[in-house]
Amino acid sequence: MAVAHSLRFVVLLLGVTYCICKRYEPTWESIDSRPIPGWYDEAKLGIFIHWGVFSVPSFGSEWFWWYWQGRKLQPYVDFMNKNYPPGFTYADFAPMFTAEFFDAKQWVDMFASSGAKYIVLTTKHHEGFTLWGSKYSFNWNAVDVGPRRDLVDELASALRKNTDLHLGLYHSLFEWFHPLFREDAANVFKTNYFPTTKSLPELYELIMKYKPEVLWSDGDGGAPDKYWNSTGFLAWLYNESPVKDTVVTNDRWGAGTICQHGGYYTCSDRYSPGHLLKHKWESCMTIDKRSWGFRRDAALQDYLSTEEIIKSLVETVSCGGNLLLNVGPTHDGRIVPIFEERLRQLGQWMKVNGEAIYSTTAWRAQNDTVTPALWYTYGPNEKAVYAITLSWPTNGSIILGAPKVSAGQTQVALLGYKQLKWEPVAAGGLRVYMPQLSPSEMPCSWAWTLKLTGAS
Amino acid sequence: MAVAHSLRFVVLLLGVTYCICKRYEPTWESIDSRPIPGWYDEAKLGIFIHWGVFSVPSFGSEWFWWYWQGRKLQPYVDFMNKNYPPGFTYADFAPMFTAEFFDAKQWVDMFASSGAKYIVLTTKHHEGFTLWGSKYSFNWNAVDVGPRRDLVDELASALRKNTDLHLGLYHSLFEWFHPLFREDAANVFKTNYFPTTKSLPELYELIMKYKPEVLWSDGDGGAPDKYWNSTGFLAWLYNESPVKDTVVTNDRWGAGTICQHGGYYTCSDRYSPGHLLKHKWESCMTIDKRSWGFRRDAALQDYLSTEEIIKSLVETVSCGGNLLLNVGPTHDGRIVPIFEERLRQLGQWMKVNGEAIYSTTAWRAQNDTVTPALWYTYGPNEKAVYAITLSWPTNGSIILGAPKVSAGQTQVALLGYKQLKWEPVAAGGLRVYMPQLSPSEMPCSWAWTLKLTGAS
Amino acid sequence: MAVAHSLRFVVLLLGVTYCICKRYEPTWESIDSRPIPGWYDEAKLGIFIHWGVFSVPSFGSEWFWWYWQGRKLQPYVDFMNKNYPPGFTYADFAPMFTAEFFDAKQWVDMFASSGAKYIVLTTKHHEGFTLWGSKYSFNWNAVDVGPRRDLVDELASALRKNTDLHLGLYHSLFEWFHPLFREDAANVFKTNYFPTTKSLPELYELIMKYKPEVLWSDGDGGAPDKYWNSTGFLAWLYNESPVKDTVVTNDRWGAGTICQHGGYYTCSDRYSPGHLLKHKWESCMTIDKRSWGFRRDAALQDYLSTEEIIKSLVETVSCGGNLLLNVGPTHDGRIVPIFEERLRQLGQWMKVNGEAIYSTTAWRAQNDTVTPALWYTYGPNEKAVYAITLSWPTNGSIILGAPKVSAGQTQVALLGYKQLKWEPVAAGGLRVYMPQLSPSEMPCSWAWTLKLTGAS
Amino acid sequence: MAVAHSLRFVVLLLGVTYCICKRYEPTWESIDSRPIPGWYDEAKLGIFIHWGVFSVPSFGSEWFWWYWQGRKLQPYVDFMNKNYPPGFTYADFAPMFTAEFFDAKQWVDMFASSGAKYIVLTTKHHEGFTLWGSKYSFNWNAVDVGPRRDLVDELASALRKNTDLHLGLYHSLFEWFHPLFREDAANVFKTNYFPTTKSLPELYELIMKYKPEVLWSDGDGGAPDKYWNSTGFLAWLYNESPVKDTVVTNDRWGAGTICQHGGYYTCSDRYSPGHLLKHKWESCMTIDKRSWGFRRDAALQDYLSTEEIIKSLVETVSCGGNLLLNVGPTHDGRIVPIFEERLRQLGQWMKVNGEAIYSTTAWRAQNDTVTPALWYTYGPNEKAVYAITLSWPTNGSIILGAPKVSAGQTQVALLGYKQLKWEPVAAGGLRVYMPQLSPSEMPCSWAWTLKLTGAS
Repeated sequence: MAVAHSLRFVVLLLGVTYCICKRYEPTWESIDSRPIPGWYDEAKLGIFIHWGVFSVPSFGSEWFWWYWQGRKLQPYVDFMNKNYPPGFTYADFAPMFTAEFFDAKQWVDMFASSGAKYIVLTTKHHEGFTLWGSKYSFNWNAVDVGPRRDLVDELASALRKNTDLHLGLYHSLFEWFHPLFREDAANVFKTNYFPTTKSLPELYELIMKYKPEVLWSDGDGGAPDKYWNSTGFLAWLYNESPVKDTVVTNDRWGAGTICQHGGYYTCSDRYSPGHLLKHKWESCMTIDKRSWGFRRDAALQDYLSTEEIIKSLVETVSCGGNLLLNVGPTHDGRIVPIFEERLRQLGQWMKVNGEAIYSTTAWRAQNDTVTPALWYTYGPNEKAVYAITLSWPTNGSIILGAPKVSAGQTQVALLGYKQLKWEPVAAGGLRVYMPQLSPSEMPCSWAWTLKLTGAS
Repeated sequence: MAVAHSLRFVVLLLGVTYCICKRYEPTWESIDSRPIPGWYDEAKLGIFIHWGVFSVPSFGSEWFWWYWQGRKLQPYVDFMNKNYPPGFTYADFAPMFTAEFFDAKQWVDMFASSGAKYIVLTTKHHEGFTLWGSKYSFNWNAVDVGPRRDLVDELASALRKNTDLHLGLYHSLFEWFHPLFREDAANVFKTNYFPTTKSLPELYELIMKYKPEVLWSDGDGGAPDKYWNSTGFLAWLYNESPVKDTVVTNDRWGAGTICQHGGYYTCSDRYSPGHLLKHKWESCMTIDKRSWGFRRDAALQDYLSTEEIIKSLVETVSCGGNLLLNVGPTHDGRIVPIFEERLRQLGQWMKVNGEAIYSTTAWRAQNDTVTPALWYTYGPNEKAVYAITLSWPTNGSIILGAPKVSAGQTQVALLGYKQLKWEPVAAGGLRVYMPQLSPSEMPCSWAWTLKLTGAS
Repeated sequence: MAVAHSLRFVVLLLGVTYCICKRYEPTWESIDSRPIPGWYDEAKLGIFIHWGVFSVPSFGSEWFWWYWQGRKLQPYVDFMNKNYPPGFTYADFAPMFTAEFFDAKQWVDMFASSGAKYIVLTTKHHEGFTLWGSKYSFNWNAVDVGPRRDLVDELASALRKNTDLHLGLYHSLFEWFHPLFREDAANVFKTNYFPTTKSLPELYELIMKYKPEVLWSDGDGGAPDKYWNSTGFLAWLYNESPVKDTVVTNDRWGAGTICQHGGYYTCSDRYSPGHLLKHKWESCMTIDKRSWGFRRDAALQDYLSTEEIIKSLVETVSCGGNLLLNVGPTHDGRIVPIFEERLRQLGQWMKVNGEAIYSTTAWRAQNDTVTPALWYTYGPNEKAVYAITLSWPTNGSIILGAPKVSAGQTQVALLGYKQLKWEPVAAGGLRVYMPQLSPSEMPCSWAWTLKLTGAS
Repeated sequence: MAVAHSLRFVVLLLGVTYCICKRYEPTWESIDSRPIPGWYDEAKLGIFIHWGVFSVPSFGSEWFWWYWQGRKLQPYVDFMNKNYPPGFTYADFAPMFTAEFFDAKQWVDMFASSGAKYIVLTTKHHEGFTLWGSKYSFNWNAVDVGPRRDLVDELASALRKNTDLHLGLYHSLFEWFHPLFREDAANVFKTNYFPTTKSLPELYELIMKYKPEVLWSDGDGGAPDKYWNSTGFLAWLYNESPVKDTVVTNDRWGAGTICQHGGYYTCSDRYSPGHLLKHKWESCMTIDKRSWGFRRDAALQDYLSTEEIIKSLVETVSCGGNLLLNVGPTHDGRIVPIFEERLRQLGQWMKVNGEAIYSTTAWRAQNDTVTPALWYTYGPNEKAVYAITLSWPTNGSIILGAPKVSAGQTQVALLGYKQLKWEPVAAGGLRVYMPQLSPSEMPCSWAWTLKLTGAS
C-alpha cells in the first residue's frame, strides 16, 4: 500500500549519474571511506543554535517535554502546575512560539562577528516540531503554527548573503512522543513505520530544500542504524544529493555508530579528549552550562565566561577538533545580550589570533611539556608553530619546552604585537621575554599567541 | 522502504477467517451486493454532530478554514483581521478547543431524548484534526492539544451504556490543507502518499478502536475511489473487521461514487427527493440552516423550528429514508439550549408517534392524493397504514384519498388519543372525523398520526 | 484637601433653577412624595440585562467573584482550579470580555419584539466594572480594557432610535471587593471614602451622560442610606437633573429602604405578592431560573418556558406591578437563541393581548373567585375588564365569577378572535362559551384574554 | 461631600507631637531647610529598578503607552499592529505581567553584590499601575491583576534582612491617562480631583505601609507644586511620618521645583555636571542607554560597559553626587544576565576601591589639572586623598598635578596593591611610579585608585 511512497525514493536512489567519482555503497565500510570535505577542518569554529517549542517554557532544558511528561521530574511538574491550567499540553505551547523579533540578518551578523565559519540550526529537535514547513509534520511546524514563517529558509537565505559562513542543519532522528516511533519501539524496532513515513522523507526534504553543508544528525532513540536506514540515506547523500561534494555529516546515525561511523566524530556532548585524535572530531558545547535551549532560570554564573570559551577553543583546535558553540534563542526570536557579548568578545580575540586557529593542523605536541595551559597549533603555509598561552606570565618570561629552535633562524612574535626576544634553554626549548604592557597596550585578553617561525 | 508499513494491512487482509458467509471482493459490484444490516432501516432517526477546531472561531461555517484561507471570502478574512493578531493561524486555534463542559453522558441522554437511534460524530473533518488520539495525526488531535481527552472514546463509552443508540463515526477522506494530499492532487492523484500514510491507516485505527456501526465517509477532494483504495478498505470492513456483521456505510467513497456505490445513499446534503427511492438512503440536514458546526453568528431565525424538523422527518421516512439531524457543539463542549429544545420536543412527538416511524416501511403511496401535507408509512407487524398529517383540519374532518377501506374491518385511531369515526368517500378513500380537543387535550403538537388497520 | 472635589457637587446642588414645580428636600418624606412619572406604569414590561466581567467565566452566577473568593464555594473554587492557572485573578478575566458580536441595534430590535417598553442595563454590578468609560474607574471599565467600547453609550444610542423603548440603567452602590468600601465597612460606615469618591460621582456621571429614565439602584452592602447620601442624590435627581421630569427610580437606596422608600418598590428579587399592592411595584425575574448573568452551565430545564413567563406577566400586571424580565448576554456580545425565542414568543402573545396589559390598571378583583388561574386587568379608556385565563377550558365554556354583567349591555370578546356567546350565572358572574378552534385558528397560545365591556 | 475624606488627612496633619525637634512648615523655605540625613551621602551608589506593565510589551521604552497612544509614534503603532489584535488595550497587558520568576532575595543579593547601599523601585510609574495593592487603584495593581503579589512588600521585606541596603520608593505624581488628572489638566489645574483622591492618599499609604528611606518623586505632568500640595505632604513627611528622621526625598515635586526645592537634586535624567555642586545631588542613569524599562529590542551595544559605568560613578562621586544606576526587570520577574554581569563587575571593583567612594566627600579639586580622566575624592577619617584614574599609564608613571605633598609625610598606595614610589614634580604635585603587573596581578580592572596620605 505504501509502495508508491517508497518508489519516489527508489527513483532518487537509482537516478543515473555519469561521473567518474567514487560511488558509495550503503555500508559503513564504504560510507566511512569518504574523506571529509576540506572546508570543514579549516573552519574550526561553528555556532550551534537550539530553538524550538521548548523555547516557549524556556525552563530547565530543551528536554523540557521529556523531563516533564516522560520522566515527570519534580521541578518541571511543579513549574507547570504553578504556571499553567491543569492539563495544559506541550502542543498548547506552540502558538506562543512567536518569533516576532527574529531577524535572520542580525543573527548572521552576530554569528559572523564571533569568527565562526559555520552554523548548525536545530531544524527539528526530539519534540518533532519542524522549523520549516515540512510536508511530513502537518500543523506541527513553524509555518502552520506559531511563527508562521519558514525559519530555516530565512536563516539559510540570510547566511548565503554572507559568503564566509556555511549552513548546517541539525535533525533529530527520533521523537520522544511520536506515536509511530513509540509503536516501532514497542515492536523492538522490527517495524519501521516511523522512519519510512517520517524521518527519512523529512531528511530528503531538508537536503533538497536547503542544501546544507553540515547535516548534524542526532537522537537514535535506542534504535540501530539499520532501523533508520542510515547507510542508505548517506549513500544517497554522498552520491546523488545536490550537496554531495561539500556536505559534512557527523556520527550520530543509530545506536552504536557514535564515535565509530559516519562523518566527523562527536562522541559525546561537550567532548574534550585532551589529546590528539586520529579522526576529525567536533566538540559541541553550550555557553549556558546546563542547557542548550534558552532557559529563563539561568543566572550569570551558569554562563561560561569568554575566558572559559577561549580555553575550550584553543584546546579543541590543538587536539584536532572543531568547536561548535551553542546559543539558545528566545521564543520571540532574540539572542540575548549575554550570548552576544560572549560571541563578540570571542570574535575580538579571533581577530588577533585567527591565524593560529583557522586552517591550522595539529602540531606534533599538543600542550607544552614545561608550561601548563599552553597549547600548540601548526600553520602549514608559513610553517609556523603557534603557542597559545592561557595565562600571561608574572615573571616577565615564558618557557616553551617543546619547540626545537636554532639561534639564527627562529623568530618569535606575539600576535597583535611584534617580535619578542628569546633565548634557548638548556633542557630544550626556549625562553621568550614578554613585553611590559599596560592594559590598553595588550593586543587581546584571555589568551595570547606566540608565533614561532624557523622552529620545528 | 514503506513495505513494512503496508505489510501490516496485508496481514489484516489475509487474516484467515473460517466462515461460510459471503466474501466480498474489492470491486463495487461485490461491495454493492452486500445487504444493509437491518437495524439501520429500523432506526430512522440519527443525530449528526459536527465538532472540531472550527468550533473555536465558531463563525460562519465549519468550512471556516477553507473559506478564510482557501477561498479568502471577505467575511472570514474580515473576522480574522478584526479579532486576531496578524498572521494568526488556524492551528493556533487548537489550544482554545477546551471542551471543559463536555459531559458525554449528558449528550447521550439528550440525543436519546430526541428519539434518535444512532449518532454520527465527526471524528475528523476536512481540517484533519482528529477527535481521538490518532497515531497518524501527531499533535493535531484532541489528546495532544486542546481538550487533551479522547473525545471519541468518551462519547462511544457513554453511548454503549445506553443500549438503544448505535455509534456512528464520520471521517473525511481528504484534508483541505494537508501537504501530502495537496502533493497528490498536484500529481493528478497519480501518487497516493496521503491515503497510504494518512487516511487509510486512520480508518483502520478508527474501526479497530471504536467499532462503530455507522462509518460515515465524506470528502473525496475530487479524487477517484481508486486513489482512496475504497473498495479495498470496504472489502476488509465487510469481511474481516470486528463490525463486519453490523456496520453500515454510506456512498461517499470517491469522486463518482455518491448516489451510486457503497452502503446507503446520501446523494447530497439536505437530500429530500420527495418520492420513494429504491435504494436505502439518508437525508442529513442541520438544525442551523446555514452551518453544521456551531456558529456564534446564528440568530433564532437561522434555526429550524420543531415543526419544520418533524415535517422533514415525516417526509423522509415516508419516502424510505433515514433522517440524520445535525447539532453543532461549542468549543467548550456544550450543546446549547436551542438545540436541546428542538431535540426534546422532537422526542415528545416521537413518544406519541414513534410507532408510525420506527421499523416502518414505505407504503404504496407516499403522500396523499387529496389532502396535501399528509404522508404515509406502513407498519408490517400490525399491517397498519399510518397517515401523518402536518396540519390539523379546521373543518372537523380530513379526507384520506389513498387507502382502500372496508366498512366492517377498517379502524382508524389518532395516535395518543383513541378511535375516531370515519366514513367512506365516494371517489375512494375515507373521511375521518377529528375530535374537538382543547390545547391541553391534544396528544401532541406539529403533526398527528392516523393509524389505519384493516385498510390497504 | 478634598474640598475642591466636593465643591463641584455643591455647585450642582445649588444651581439656581427658576421653576414653579415642587422642590424636593433630601428627606425620605419629601422624596417619597414625588409621584412616579406616568409612562412607567403604562409600560408594564421591561427587559433587564445583566452583563459584565462575570459574563467571561459565565459559570454559576453573576455573583461568581463573590462565590469564588468571598464565600469560597466549592463549585466555583473547583471550576477555577480545573480551568485556570493557580492564582488567576478575577481582573485577569477582563481582557477576555471582548463583545465582538455586540450589535446594539440587534439587541434593541430583539427587546422591542418582546413587547417590552423599557430596558435596564447593569452599567456596573457589584464587581465594580463599569460598562461605560467612567472617570472614576480607571482601567476597570469597558473602554479601557476588554471591549474597548462604551457599551452604555452604544445601547443608549440604538435605543433612542426606537422611540418606543425607555432607557434604564442599573447601578450597584457597593462593590464586593473595593478596598475603600471595605475600609468604610470596617469602620462601621462612620467613614464614607467610598461614596464620596466613587459611587456618588459615578451616579452623577451616569445621569449627566446617558439621561436614563429608569435608575435602578442596587446593593447597599449593609450600609444605611445616610452613608450613601441617597436622599441628597435623589433630591438632586428630582430637582436639578436633566431627567428630573421623567426619571423613575426604585427602592434600593440603603439598608432598610427596600419596600419602604424611593420610587417604585422591588422588595425582593422575583417578587410576586399575588395580591394588589398600594404602591407601584416591579417584579424583576430572570429567564434562567438560577442566574441573572449568562451561565454556560445552564441546561434547557433551567430556562423558564414562554408559558411560565406569560403567567408571571399576567399575575404581575393584574396585581399592579411591572415585570422586568432578565436576559444575560455572553462575553462576546450575543443574546443566545433560547432567550431570543422566549422574547419573540412573548412578543407574539403581546401583539394579540397587549391591550389587556399596556396602560391598564388593576381591577377591583385580581384573580377570579370561581375559575383558578384567571387574572383581571382594567382598561380605563374603554372601561373594559380583561379576564386572562392561563388555560383553555376543556368543557367548552368558562365561568367568570367576579364580573357583574347585564344582559343588554355586557359584551364578551376573545382577543384576536371575535365576540363570544355568554350567559349569566345564578351565583353571580357569567359563563362564556369558548369557540372550537383548531391549532391554526387559535389567536395565540399559552393564555387567552376575554374582554368584557359593559360589565363592572 | 468629600469632607469626610479630607478630614482623615487633616487629622494626620494636625496630629500633635511633643518633640523638641524642629517643626517644618508647608513652605519651600522651611522644607528646604531640612538637612539631608547623613546615611544618604555616605551611600553613594543606589540601584534604580523600573518595573511595571510596560515590562510586558518590553518594547522601545517604559514610556510605551504614551508613545503608542499619546504621541502615536510609528514604531510603537507598528509594533502593536503587527503583534496584537485590533483594539488591544494597554490594560489588556496587565494579566501578562506574571512575575513568576521574581525572587526578591535573589534580587537583593544581586543588588548588594554591586556595592550599592540603597535601591529605588518604581512602585507606580506614569501608567498608574501600582506594584503594591493600593486602596486607591482598584484592579489596576499587582495584587488584583497579573502577579497577584505585593511586589513592593516582597522586595522591602527581603531588603530588611540585608541591613546594608536602604529602601527607596519611586512614585509618579501624575498619570498619563488617568481621567481625573486629565480633567484637572483641562481645567488648567484649578481643580484638584486627582491629587486629593489619588496621588496624595497613595503617597500616605506608601509611606505608612513600607516606611521607605528614599521617596523618589517624579512626574509633575506640568502642574505646579501647589496643585500637588507637595509642601503640605513634605511637612507631614518630615514632621509626623514614621520615617521623618531618616527619609530622603528628591526635587521633583511640581513644575519648577526640579533642581530648586525638596531634598537632593536630580536636575535631569543622566545628570552629570562635571563639577562640584553645593547641594547634594544624584545622577540617575540607566545601563540600557535608551530605556529604563526592560526592552527586548535592546542589543549588546545598547548596554553601557562596566568601564563606562565606573567612569560615571567616579565622576559623580568626585563632584558630590550619588549614582542611581538603573536596571529593568522582565515581565516574568528576571533581571537578565547582562545586567547581572554589570552589577557584579561593578561590585568587584567596589571591593577594591570602596574606600575611595563610600563616605567620602568632595575634595578641593575634582579632576586633575595635569592628567586627564583622573578624579579626586576625600576620606575625612583618614584624611586621605583618593585619586582615581580611568586609564593605566603606558609610560610607567602618572603625574598628579593637584595634591600638595611633602617628602617626609606623604605616602602613596595603589588600592588593592601596596605602597608605590613617588617623587615631587617641580611644577607642583607628584609623579607616582606604577608597578609592572601582569593581567592576573592587577588588583582590579577599568579604573585604579591612588591613595595619598600626608598630602593636602
